[in-house]
Amino acid sequence: MTGAVMKRSQKAGLPPGSLVYVGDEAAARTTIDVIDYTQEQIDEISVLNAGDLAAYRDRDTVTWINVTGLHEVGVIEKTGEIFGLHPLILEDILNTEQRPKMEEYDETIYVVMKMIGYLEDGKVVDEQISLVLGDRYVISFQERPGDVFDPVCERIRSPKWRARQRGADYLAYALIDTIVDEYFHVIERFGERIEAVDDLIIADPDPKTIRSIRELRRELIFLRKSVWPMREVISGLERSDSTLITHQTRLYLRDVYDHTIQVIDTLETYRDMAAGMLDIYLSSASNRMNEVMKVLTIIATIFIPLSFIAGVFGMNFQHMPELEWGYGYPASLALMAGVALVLLIYFRRKRWI
Amino acid sequence: MTGAVMKRSQKAGLPPGSLVYVGDEAAARTTIDVIDYTQEQIDEISVLNAGDLAAYRDRDTVTWINVTGLHEVGVIEKTGEIFGLHPLILEDILNTEQRPKMEEYDETIYVVMKMIGYLEDGKVVDEQISLVLGDRYVISFQERPGDVFDPVCERIRSPKWRARQRGADYLAYALIDTIVDEYFHVIERFGERIEAVDDLIIADPDPKTIRSIRELRRELIFLRKSVWPMREVISGLERSDSTLITHQTRLYLRDVYDHTIQVIDTLETYRDMAAGMLDIYLSSASNRMNEVMKVLTIIATIFIPLSFIAGVFGMNFQHMPELEWGYGYPASLALMAGVALVLLIYFRRKRWI
Amino acid sequence: MTGAVMKRSQKAGLPPGSLVYVGDEAAARTTIDVIDYTQEQIDEISVLNAGDLAAYRDRDTVTWINVTGLHEVGVIEKTGEIFGLHPLILEDILNTEQRPKMEEYDETIYVVMKMIGYLEDGKVVDEQISLVLGDRYVISFQERPGDVFDPVCERIRSPKWRARQRGADYLAYALIDTIVDEYFHVIERFGERIEAVDDLIIADPDPKTIRSIRELRRELIFLRKSVWPMREVISGLERSDSTLITHQTRLYLRDVYDHTIQVIDTLETYRDMAAGMLDIYLSSASNRMNEVMKVLTIIATIFIPLSFIAGVFGMNFQHMPELEWGYGYPASLALMAGVALVLLIYFRRKRWI
Amino acid sequence: MTGAVMKRSQKAGLPPGSLVYVGDEAAARTTIDVIDYTQEQIDEISVLNAGDLAAYRDRDTVTWINVTGLHEVGVIEKTGEIFGLHPLILEDILNTEQRPKMEEYDETIYVVMKMIGYLEDGKVVDEQISLVLGDRYVISFQERPGDVFDPVCERIRSPKWRARQRGADYLAYALIDTIVDEYFHVIERFGERIEAVDDLIIADPDPKTIRSIRELRRELIFLRKSVWPMREVISGLERSDSTLITHQTRLYLRDVYDHTIQVIDTLETYRDMAAGMLDIYLSSASNRMNEVMKVLTIIATIFIPLSFIAGVFGMNFQHMPELEWGYGYPASLALMAGVALVLLIYFRRKRWI
Amino acid sequence: MTGAVMKRSQKAGLPPGSLVYVGDEAAARTTIDVIDYTQEQIDEISVLNAGDLAAYRDRDTVTWINVTGLHEVGVIEKTGEIFGLHPLILEDILNTEQRPKMEEYDETIYVVMKMIGYLEDGKVVDEQISLVLGDRYVISFQERPGDVFDPVCERIRSPKWRARQRGADYLAYALIDTIVDEYFHVIERFGERIEAVDDLIIADPDPKTIRSIRELRRELIFLRKSVWPMREVISGLERSDSTLITHQTRLYLRDVYDHTIQVIDTLETYRDMAAGMLDIYLSSASNRMNEVMKVLTIIATIFIPLSFIAGVFGMNFQHMPELEWGYGYPASLALMAGVALVLLIYFRRKRWI
Repeated sequence: MTGAVMKRSQKAGLPPGSLVYVGDEAAARTTIDVIDYTQEQIDEISVLNAGDLAAYRDRDTVTWINVTGLHEVGVIEKTGEIFGLHPLILEDILNTEQRPKMEEYDETIYVVMKMIGYLEDGKVVDEQISLVLGDRYVISFQERPGDVFDPVCERIRSPKWRARQRGADYLAYALIDTIVDEYFHVIERFGERIEAVDDLIIADPDPKTIRSIRELRRELIFLRKSVWPMREVISGLERSDSTLITHQTRLYLRDVYDHTIQVIDTLETYRDMAAGMLDIYLSSASNRMNEVMKVLTIIATIFIPLSFIAGVFGMNFQHMPELEWGYGYPASLALMAGVALVLLIYFRRKRWI
Repeated sequence: MTGAVMKRSQKAGLPPGSLVYVGDEAAARTTIDVIDYTQEQIDEISVLNAGDLAAYRDRDTVTWINVTGLHEVGVIEKTGEIFGLHPLILEDILNTEQRPKMEEYDETIYVVMKMIGYLEDGKVVDEQISLVLGDRYVISFQERPGDVFDPVCERIRSPKWRARQRGADYLAYALIDTIVDEYFHVIERFGERIEAVDDLIIADPDPKTIRSIRELRRELIFLRKSVWPMREVISGLERSDSTLITHQTRLYLRDVYDHTIQVIDTLETYRDMAAGMLDIYLSSASNRMNEVMKVLTIIATIFIPLSFIAGVFGMNFQHMPELEWGYGYPASLALMAGVALVLLIYFRRKRWI
Repeated sequence: MTGAVMKRSQKAGLPPGSLVYVGDEAAARTTIDVIDYTQEQIDEISVLNAGDLAAYRDRDTVTWINVTGLHEVGVIEKTGEIFGLHPLILEDILNTEQRPKMEEYDETIYVVMKMIGYLEDGKVVDEQISLVLGDRYVISFQERPGDVFDPVCERIRSPKWRARQRGADYLAYALIDTIVDEYFHVIERFGERIEAVDDLIIADPDPKTIRSIRELRRELIFLRKSVWPMREVISGLERSDSTLITHQTRLYLRDVYDHTIQVIDTLETYRDMAAGMLDIYLSSASNRMNEVMKVLTIIATIFIPLSFIAGVFGMNFQHMPELEWGYGYPASLALMAGVALVLLIYFRRKRWI
Repeated sequence: MTGAVMKRSQKAGLPPGSLVYVGDEAAARTTIDVIDYTQEQIDEISVLNAGDLAAYRDRDTVTWINVTGLHEVGVIEKTGEIFGLHPLILEDILNTEQRPKMEEYDETIYVVMKMIGYLEDGKVVDEQISLVLGDRYVISFQERPGDVFDPVCERIRSPKWRARQRGADYLAYALIDTIVDEYFHVIERFGERIEAVDDLIIADPDPKTIRSIRELRRELIFLRKSVWPMREVISGLERSDSTLITHQTRLYLRDVYDHTIQVIDTLETYRDMAAGMLDIYLSSASNRMNEVMKVLTIIATIFIPLSFIAGVFGMNFQHMPELEWGYGYPASLALMAGVALVLLIYFRRKRWI
Repeated sequence: MTGAVMKRSQKAGLPPGSLVYVGDEAAARTTIDVIDYTQEQIDEISVLNAGDLAAYRDRDTVTWINVTGLHEVGVIEKTGEIFGLHPLILEDILNTEQRPKMEEYDETIYVVMKMIGYLEDGKVVDEQISLVLGDRYVISFQERPGDVFDPVCERIRSPKWRARQRGADYLAYALIDTIVDEYFHVIERFGERIEAVDDLIIADPDPKTIRSIRELRRELIFLRKSVWPMREVISGLERSDSTLITHQTRLYLRDVYDHTIQVIDTLETYRDMAAGMLDIYLSSASNRMNEVMKVLTIIATIFIPLSFIAGVFGMNFQHMPELEWGYGYPASLALMAGVALVLLIYFRRKRWI
């Protein structure tokens, strides 16, 4: 969770504007995939040299350039140069510890988002996705290869899809929508876990449960940090004055906005539930403990007076008439039974047992 | 509670705009009931084929189309086509996991609300109600057959009712008012339960009470999630610039708004009460436990020194003058009684017993 | 506390605009008292027939109509008809479970407030007071006969009083001021109780204290619900664009507003105090309990090793040289005393006793 | 703390505008001190008769009238009459339970503030200071004689001081600045106390500490109530449209505003610290208690099995071969030592001791 | 933490505008370093006499004057006089207990910030940095000599650096950026500590942990107090109407603003984590304690009935047939073993062991 901050600090001290990749070193090469389409035709190319992107600079078609892997700084720099991106955009793309945000520049809109996913071992990870929306192009930057944008590719290939007749802004919307939709998967799995822990707390409060609660809380903090700012990002896009976004696309952005609010709402619900969990756990655990202690103490309390009576008759005084009495022994046992009975009745009356 | 999220995620990945029913599969068929009225006359028809709705498209009368059951996607699609509804409206109608919201489109206003009801087994359920308000028509969409709108039907049938001389906006108001009025029933039953648990906590704190408190809290979270957004929905309608809503109807909407605030206020009051419950429960339970432990410990504490004395006189030393003394036994008993008395007086003084 | 909601729900389902009295059935008849005054003269009449109020409709004098008792719906309806009140006003007057609010209509301003009072048995009760401010008249509606407005009557009777030369708006201000002043009495008594409980918590924490804390909390919730909305009500009046309220009266309304803020401030202070009470109580109670347990446990802990020693010398082995030793018995007693002393010193050092 | 409310309620029921002194009856007479100055000259007079103030009504000089003691209502009334103060101003001056506020009237600005000071016995007290700022005069009202404004007097007497060449608004600023500066003294002493208690909690948690924490909390509530509204008061003055305050003085008011924010910030810091104190105390106290209980219980637990063994060999069966065995006694002692050792090793392993 | 307040109060009572250094007395002399540059050339001078600064008053070059050490009030005063700084600016520069803020004056913008650093012994310290931004100059004031601005110096010396062709506003931005970047270092170390404590809580809850939690909390309060207001400071600069800041620099300020938000976000995350820590600690500690108590109590509970049985057979009655029975002793041992077994099975069933 503090990873972002640690890495970020490596950059502190460098002049503002220095292009340094701040993130995990990815193994694979940086790859560039281009999909260039109009309503009638579509071209899909893997560009090997960033310089070749210049061909897509001033076309009438809609161009989607997807850059995967950020560690080859030169590629990013070249791309930025070709499309005239502001140095601060390039800096933010490379710094993968950004907070989701939306920034308008003179001729482009820059959007940073966090993709969230579950690893196989149940850990939540995030990946920074940057989008640059220009007049006729969208450039997306991913940290790692992944299939998150595959559904969008599929749909672009279908000539019937709405996006084919719309501009780059609708493409950008489709990409954002895909990312927000992913949140639902994560939230769903998270919901299952929170339910599981919540049930466990009542059924079988166990010291290990505390660990689970703590983990849930920490992941919630992590998720909130990624999702909350999306609210501003998307409402910023929707209400932006920029001519890059058409009225029609704004309606769709309003829809993504609603989804984001729904995700946030659910996260807050989980937060409310998680907040009460430790209290419930403590109550449950203390209830169980109290039950144990009460029964044990009652047993001890009944036998201590009995032991005392036995102790009295075990004294070695020479003149103890009871000891010589023929029925002394059974009488003493009866006395003990009587004392035990009286105590039991008293505890019962008090509703302690 | 997480149902919404789970089902929602089934849709994630589909292209935006795909019409897929996201909700429980209802058994019954989708039915369409039309009430078409002016001040003078009224027609009630059950339409079997969605295509027949075209007849009501451009009438001068006020038309209320009530669609029950959302699983026959074709019917919804056809209806949307006839009345020129935006694809996003249709999508939202079918996705029954929406957050209550109000959206203005060019010629319609779209409203999503949650009906809340108590099942017979005491569980709270919700049902999504969508309203589309057009120039001269209102289309309402319900998930399941139900009688919630019956009172409105009754009133429309009466020629004297105000709505008969007013437009579609007043009809929409009447439908919303009916739904908000339903909240009061739910809140009332919830209030009874919260009072019952609250009394129980003091009277007889019991491990089972924790379960009840937890359930109350979870249902409150659920209710808040459904009711809170209604505030924005109705104030959005009241303050909308749309010409679809007349000044006169706005006064009535202000009234519904007040009712919503009243429901929210009461929910917040319950939340405050529920928040303190676990604390009170813990205090109560720990008080009772402490009482038990104190009494038991005092009994043990008195008898342990007495047992010690008995133990001393039970030692087998050959030279223990007390043992041979004629009054040794009664004297030892007296000593024990004395010790017990001193301890009792001491505890009394300290106000422990 | 939930009374409001329960009763409110009886009305749910009725057509909006149905006039039904929602409140406790008051025994007495609905009475109408009219005070009609100019600077020079004053008339006080008890009107038996609501129809007679028509005479006061268009006078140049200032007219105050005070309606007591709301169960005779016809009287309210007739009054509304004469003064042309909007149906929603009449509905709100009769529904005594309103949240305090202020609503501007075309020619009237409608204000709902809650009077709060202490019953003799220490319970807080509220009563709904509605005011309708028109051009030259004020109509006030009370649920039950009471003397809350008596001071205003007294003052009107005095020809020197400022209000005699001012309009209906100043009269409305005077009535509101009277109600807000009443809050101070309630707050004062509440303050005394909160101080009493707060002192008790430290001095003598007692299971019954939890009950008191719970009651304080619930009444605070109740009071807040009645008083908080008054803030908006009065600031709404002060900032209203309506020509019904003169600049001069606005200055006085600002003054009442300050009083309301003062009441709210004090309520919040009490809330802060009450919030900490349970914590302090638990700390106090657990401190006392710990003291008890510690002393008792120390007594037991000292005697258990001593009993063990006695037990050893009570064993029946044939060859136990100590038993035959002449000073065995005093030596064993000395040993026990020594062990007890060592333990006491140890506990003392550890500052446990 | 509830004093304000109690006294305030004595006034409730009186007609608005009645001049009644609501505050503690001060022993001394009401005194009026006037300082009248221009850049060149200065006059200091003690006025015995409020009527004499009329002479200062329309001068070109800057006049500061300081009224000490509010119980002679006639003096206040006369002063108000001479300077044409609104009845509500006079009422507020006399009601010493006001919340700090700033009110603009047509030709004057009225400011109420709370002076806070520490009494010698460590109690926090407040005193209401009212300022009326007119065109060329400032009237200040104090409840009790005091030296709070002495530094301002000193400075006015120096012909070089900036205020001498500026208007009444700068004088008012200087007075307000003096009061806000006093807050720092109180906050400082409070800070020392909070540090002291905070250290004590860890070092030596003691039932008396709860009392200290409770007192700190209550005084914080009290301080907040006095200081928070000052924020609005001063920002209100700074942003006021009134021509009574020059642009130059506004810069200085912004400075006082910053000081107020700093005081509030520090109060909030203390609040955060105080909020956590009870938790830390409880943790600390429960840690100490647990340590005690654990050691005591371990002692008991070791000796109970040993006592049992002794008890077995103290039984009086005729055929107990061990008893007749020559090494029975030392063997039994060895057995006991062995059991004790095994238990000690077990507890050690479990890290209980 | 209260240092600021204590020292601040030393100044209370002085006339507003008195120049007094409020801060720790630094040992070294006040030094003035000037860097004066255009794109082509650069001059670096150490000025010994503040009066020499007049030469830089009206140059066309960009001048950065860095004043280190604030205790020589004359130097500050002289500097202020030469550059025509408002008296309030000088006062604020010398009062090192300011809250971060940004103030616009007619021809200058004044910014106060807090540099935060870790001392070698792990304590967090802050240092006040004041910036005055004029038309062609930036004056920075530091309390103590330090190397925080060294990277900026380095970069200015490089003729290629962007700032060389930009105005004083870009220089001010670079200085602010350097300070915000420093926050990341502090936050990183803080993050490491919070993780360490968080792990410790679960792994090995220890009374010392409370101290660590308390320290973390106090430092968080301290950090928040320094960092939060930076948000307003930088957004104030970004949105300021002043012509001193160019459009281009505003883009860079927006970037620093994002960094500040990121720091604040992380601080809030830490706050959330720290808030839950004490709860988790208490749960953990009470779990461990409960485990101990349960085992110990179970041991005691099993042996008390056994001791009772031994006590019975240790009674000295003359007629106790069991004692004379040949198998009495083994039978009694078997009885005891049986009782112990039954209890163990019972506890096992109840899942207590």
